[in-house]
Amino acid sequence: MKLIRVKDLHTVLQLIEDNFSPLPAEKVSLEQAGGRTVSETVIAREDVPGFNRSTVDGYAVFAGDTFGAGESLPAVLDCTGEVLMGQAAPEIEPGQCCQVHTGGMLPPGADAVVMVENTEVLGSQVHIYRQVAPGENVIHRGEDLQKGSPVLQAGTRLRAPELGLLASLGITEVTVYRRPVVGLLSSGDELVPYHTAKVSPGQIRDSNGIAINYLARQAGAVVINGGILPDDFSQFLSRSQKLLAEVDFLVLSGGSSVGTRDFTAQTMQELGRPGLLVEGIAIQPGKPTLLANCRGKPVLGLPGHPVSALNIFAQFGVAVLNRLSGIPGKLFTPTVRAVLNRNIPSRSGRTDYVRVRLSSVNGHPEASPIFGRSGMLRTLAQADGIVIVPAEKEGLSAGEPVEVILWD
Amino acid sequence: MKLIRVKDLHTVLQLIEDNFSPLPAEKVSLEQAGGRTVSETVIAREDVPGFNRSTVDGYAVFAGDTFGAGESLPAVLDCTGEVLMGQAAPEIEPGQCCQVHTGGMLPPGADAVVMVENTEVLGSQVHIYRQVAPGENVIHRGEDLQKGSPVLQAGTRLRAPELGLLASLGITEVTVYRRPVVGLLSSGDELVPYHTAKVSPGQIRDSNGIAINYLARQAGAVVINGGILPDDFSQFLSRSQKLLAEVDFLVLSGGSSVGTRDFTAQTMQELGRPGLLVEGIAIQPGKPTLLANCRGKPVLGLPGHPVSALNIFAQFGVAVLNRLSGIPGKLFTPTVRAVLNRNIPSRSGRTDYVRVRLSSVNGHPEASPIFGRSGMLRTLAQADGIVIVPAEKEGLSAGEPVEVILWD
Repeated sequence: MKLIRVKDLHTVLQLIEDNFSPLPAEKVSLEQAGGRTVSETVIAREDVPGFNRSTVDGYAVFAGDTFGAGESLPAVLDCTGEVLMGQAAPEIEPGQCCQVHTGGMLPPGADAVVMVENTEVLGSQVHIYRQVAPGENVIHRGEDLQKGSPVLQAGTRLRAPELGLLASLGITEVTVYRRPVVGLLSSGDELVPYHTAKVSPGQIRDSNGIAINYLARQAGAVVINGGILPDDFSQFLSRSQKLLAEVDFLVLSGGSSVGTRDFTAQTMQELGRPGLLVEGIAIQPGKPTLLANCRGKPVLGLPGHPVSALNIFAQFGVAVLNRLSGIPGKLFTPTVRAVLNRNIPSRSGRTDYVRVRLSSVNGHPEASPIFGRSGMLRTLAQADGIVIVPAEKEGLSAGEPVEVILWD
Repeated sequence: MKLIRVKDLHTVLQLIEDNFSPLPAEKVSLEQAGGRTVSETVIAREDVPGFNRSTVDGYAVFAGDTFGAGESLPAVLDCTGEVLMGQAAPEIEPGQCCQVHTGGMLPPGADAVVMVENTEVLGSQVHIYRQVAPGENVIHRGEDLQKGSPVLQAGTRLRAPELGLLASLGITEVTVYRRPVVGLLSSGDELVPYHTAKVSPGQIRDSNGIAINYLARQAGAVVINGGILPDDFSQFLSRSQKLLAEVDFLVLSGGSSVGTRDFTAQTMQELGRPGLLVEGIAIQPGKPTLLANCRGKPVLGLPGHPVSALNIFAQFGVAVLNRLSGIPGKLFTPTVRAVLNRNIPSRSGRTDYVRVRLSSVNGHPEASPIFGRSGMLRTLAQADGIVIVPAEKEGLSAGEPVEVILWD
């Protein structure tokens, strides 16, 4: 048997970074842009806000008119009226004030706002019981964004705040990297479509297709399901070639028998140069993973066992999709810190992904490892997340603190 | 001025739990079911796997035939052929073996599989160089799921593993809680639609609509954007009534002036009994938040400042959506543990949501607080996440470890 040249986790992630690039950019409406990454720096075409605004309900004043004002000695100002919301404010002069609402425009000349709580209206005059400094309770024109300044750097992912920021500038379209189109093929003579009502002995339903479809869509991809391939090399190759031509990323969810695996590897070599990059990853479950670069397009060969396939796709398939979508790598992964309640044995030299269930013990998170073969999806469905045992460690002990990455 | 009865964070979350219920259930195809919650316990209608399967490539045997076999003294068995993938395996008798691939069916009678690495083929015979125990390298019929046993409990959210599990059982439709339909109304005479190319002095573009629309869709909702309401009570009430009738959850993104806020509160009281539940939350930013139960439908009144509005919607709007969707509350929130690099002042008695930016200092996460008014969306766009300063604490000090909740 051929020796597999197994690569470690970080090498594989680096290979993904080095071999693939974000897809071409396209213009989309702001409504369609959430979760996507801008390919160009966005520049503010105007100041935000476009005028000096009050941040409170109160009276716009010349700050100097209030100096020395206090509870016992109010400043007394003439009130010229009210700034109507959405309208330009009328000018005021020293000695005057004007009622203004939160978000309302400051009258030209006014440089501060006294909160309504610190005032009293007496006829056409307003008594000011507290002095304000210039700029107090005011957000100045251009304070949030200045015309000509960068709003978002190229490579920024659009979350809700970024969408709001663009909307505040009147930007209705934005240039983002195209969504990746993923093609899925499952393989194995034993597989039948999952909607097969009655399966014969020896057959099993394809469960990877739908699960990976969902993971890919969660990562922002469009999915084409290419169905099931029989264990026949010429069909394997021709259908893979055909689907690869239509997609940005091909995923072969392989049978895990040595025969099928060889077909997959051979196919990946023939789909285009430079071909196979990875012929095994030092992680468990999921070691027999294949990754190729076929004329610039990534092709991933997943192990056939469902738990391995999902584990690998969640880690490396999503990394490929993020690379194609231009989504920047997360600096840090959020985790739940829990106490392990059983020993986890592990072989050194291999990164182990251990499924755990979380529970609350006296309000503190406790992680129970779920052991079970990688063919058993139930063990993954019972898990809230995973604990990674790094390659240099030989297992973890009960009572140790661990970081749990939740499965969403 | 009326005193606001401010409620704390946990009280508000409990009120959401107590006042609202999951929406009626509906049957959807498995393709449409990802992220949704099953309303009924799902029972396995068959065993998974449906037959004893090999977990390796090798030879199916009677374990007893291999007892005592070793490197120097192999057991010699007659090979009857090969189990073809996807086909029923032919029966074997003691003294015989049959080639089997990973995932292949075990021949009736065989109770273990010897890995191919521990065998040698000599003509029609196979030499076995390692003994196997009964059950070794076999996954038994029903070992993943037993016919009649519960696969998923009612109230389970469907992630990729659950979808795969259902597919493996041939389940093509599943009963899940209906997706909530959310109606959004922005209010304030100063607001104009965000696609307005040129705004006049005193006007600002509505940035909350699109940002909240995205947060709601991320949480699985369908969104109806009702546009902008002027500061006019009768229009406020009639358009809110009309939209509330069409949706499951109404969100009023309010002007933050006292006047608009009063309209919002009054509208929420008139939309139906029991009316207002919350007239302020002891959190910052976002204190002037309103929540009502109008004939069983939740109505949320968001503060007008964009940062406050997004902060409140991400926390409480999403909690309402999860309740309506039947999505179980997370036991624990995943965070990035970082070291704070500046003091954060905070008033005791109020929960503070402080925006922070994460950076890597010698590979360790460091959190820099971003200060700025809640009217400035840029401060939220610059943040990677938030740090919560609990109500009982008076600020946090530089050098303290903090838990950062990432904004996605």
